[in-house]
Amino acid sequence: MSEPHTKRRRELVRQLKQRKLDCLLVTHPANWLYLSGFSGDSGVLAVAAGRTTLITDGRFTTQAKQESPGVRLELQKGALYPSVGDWLKRSRFREIGYDPDQWTVSQLKAIRIAAGPRCRFVEARGLVEALRTKKDAQELAVMRKAAILAGEVVLSALALVKPGIRESELGAEIEYQMKHRGASGPSFETIVAFGSRAALPHARPTAKRLRKNELVVLDLGVILGHYCSDITRTVYVGRAPRRIREWYRAVQEANEAAVDAVKAGVSCGDVDAAARELLRRRGLDQYFVHSTGHGLGLEVHESPRIARGQSIRLEAGNVITIEPGVYVEGVGGIRIEDDVVVGNHGNEVLTRISRDLIEL
Amino acid sequence: MSEPHTKRRRELVRQLKQRKLDCLLVTHPANWLYLSGFSGDSGVLAVAAGRTTLITDGRFTTQAKQESPGVRLELQKGALYPSVGDWLKRSRFREIGYDPDQWTVSQLKAIRIAAGPRCRFVEARGLVEALRTKKDAQELAVMRKAAILAGEVVLSALALVKPGIRESELGAEIEYQMKHRGASGPSFETIVAFGSRAALPHARPTAKRLRKNELVVLDLGVILGHYCSDITRTVYVGRAPRRIREWYRAVQEANEAAVDAVKAGVSCGDVDAAARELLRRRGLDQYFVHSTGHGLGLEVHESPRIARGQSIRLEAGNVITIEPGVYVEGVGGIRIEDDVVVGNHGNEVLTRISRDLIEL
Repeated sequence: MSEPHTKRRRELVRQLKQRKLDCLLVTHPANWLYLSGFSGDSGVLAVAAGRTTLITDGRFTTQAKQESPGVRLELQKGALYPSVGDWLKRSRFREIGYDPDQWTVSQLKAIRIAAGPRCRFVEARGLVEALRTKKDAQELAVMRKAAILAGEVVLSALALVKPGIRESELGAEIEYQMKHRGASGPSFETIVAFGSRAALPHARPTAKRLRKNELVVLDLGVILGHYCSDITRTVYVGRAPRRIREWYRAVQEANEAAVDAVKAGVSCGDVDAAARELLRRRGLDQYFVHSTGHGLGLEVHESPRIARGQSIRLEAGNVITIEPGVYVEGVGGIRIEDDVVVGNHGNEVLTRISRDLIEL
Repeated sequence: MSEPHTKRRRELVRQLKQRKLDCLLVTHPANWLYLSGFSGDSGVLAVAAGRTTLITDGRFTTQAKQESPGVRLELQKGALYPSVGDWLKRSRFREIGYDPDQWTVSQLKAIRIAAGPRCRFVEARGLVEALRTKKDAQELAVMRKAAILAGEVVLSALALVKPGIRESELGAEIEYQMKHRGASGPSFETIVAFGSRAALPHARPTAKRLRKNELVVLDLGVILGHYCSDITRTVYVGRAPRRIREWYRAVQEANEAAVDAVKAGVSCGDVDAAARELLRRRGLDQYFVHSTGHGLGLEVHESPRIARGQSIRLEAGNVITIEPGVYVEGVGGIRIEDDVVVGNHGNEVLTRISRDLIEL
């Protein structure tokens, strides 16, 4: 159980040494889950060579012992951040790394005052997030299941797509199906958009009822074993007019072109460009108003961003979404989204349900 | 529509003047929703005498115009925080309030650099949160509905409490019922705990199946019109043994004693003591392992805390939960929770379904 966590901490410690840091204070729950298995929601994980310490309160001690066998536990006395500072003062650590994107001004102040003048706090941004972008075999095994489950939920929802149903009813049914099928919950608020509302990329479900001859966009994901999936399918209720069929085909081809571009060494900007160029050739690129995708893992939006101009290169083990779309105000929108693992010589698509246009 | 928001901003500006602040930068979504009606999830609201400005990006402009008619819109150029700094530099503002509990170290740094040396950033903690504790008539009208809806969901769930059902199934059904009945979602992850698991105050639903002669704790809340409710009921499946009946009666009396203590001018610690003292007289106070309640509103945990030793006094318009409980390891737990509005001469209980022991 704890094997992958030990390995991840070892890799992090290697990076801390390069930066001459004695320890890194991890305050983001997804990061300490990744490094230690601890799934509680309050604490600070101090990662250092040879030993890692979790400072938390009495509510979480039993849980932490079970989930993080290789981690020392330190019970906080009073408020968390002053306790961490006290603990640092008593420790041999002098150069302390922290992530300024995740620490509030108050937290840094409280810990600094309690730690005293011998500790120096050094900005260390996104170290754990960078490690998290490369998924190991255990993570990929869980993410495969999360993606398959999301596909099953889409299929179960399609059975309910009938004129008269409300967006909100379908959204509630979808989230019910997730939990019923074993997910711990949705990885984000499910998007259900009918007709012209499908032109909004982030439409929240409303009381709108489905009518015949409307597009239906379903964008959903589940959390399973702490890992997120994210899938979008678009269907047409009735026989789709030629224009819709053409748009759909273009989005489908853009999805395929981008997926085909995914392999280790390719820049994220080039994957984005593959989708965008296909839509440009169909005269639809001005309707593709967002980026092509994002990293996926313990959180539903992670690094890397698959967007215009991103020069960062994909690495084997990255998991990303590919989700091109076209959105035409007053008419509707079409988006097709899959989850893809980056391999050395190609890729693996985790979301396996059909991408072809379904007319219901 | 915007009337209450204007009034709230006027009150905030009065406090800014007292502190000699030219403006307050509001970064917490619940706070800008309260002050402007804007329900988007990215931006900074700068509240100042005479004019309030929302700095946000193009995704939110249409929405902001609709939701916040009295607020000036400023489109960010590039990243949000440097844009806010640029805007401050061009403004007449010099003394800028910010909440160090809500700003990250990076945000403060980015805004400071862009704003230049003429702007001074001054800590101003919890000003909007303090205003939010006193609910106005519009807010109370919405919170009444949210509490009634939560009670209806409890009743609908009780119909499903039968031996064989899993905690996770009942949890999924409860959250489905919320949305089906018009809530935008749960105000926190629904707690469903059967049998000895009911001894954990924050039990997440598991695959455990209900058996006869077990306690069932249901703790849930809905979000309706942006406002939260929060209710707990405990039932027994079968005929409750004498010990359980006695505990239940004690918790019910502790709930009533605390509710009876609620009115303007009473300290939060005294409300907590009313529940605790009742349980002490029954020899059960050592099993009441948490505080008696918390403020409720746009967020499910707000000020004030109804806990031991809290000297802050209740004010008319506060909405708080009263939720005493007893938890006995290996046996189970009982909690009864209601939402209560503080009045000048008494109070109004918003959660109106019965508190009597139900045996199913």
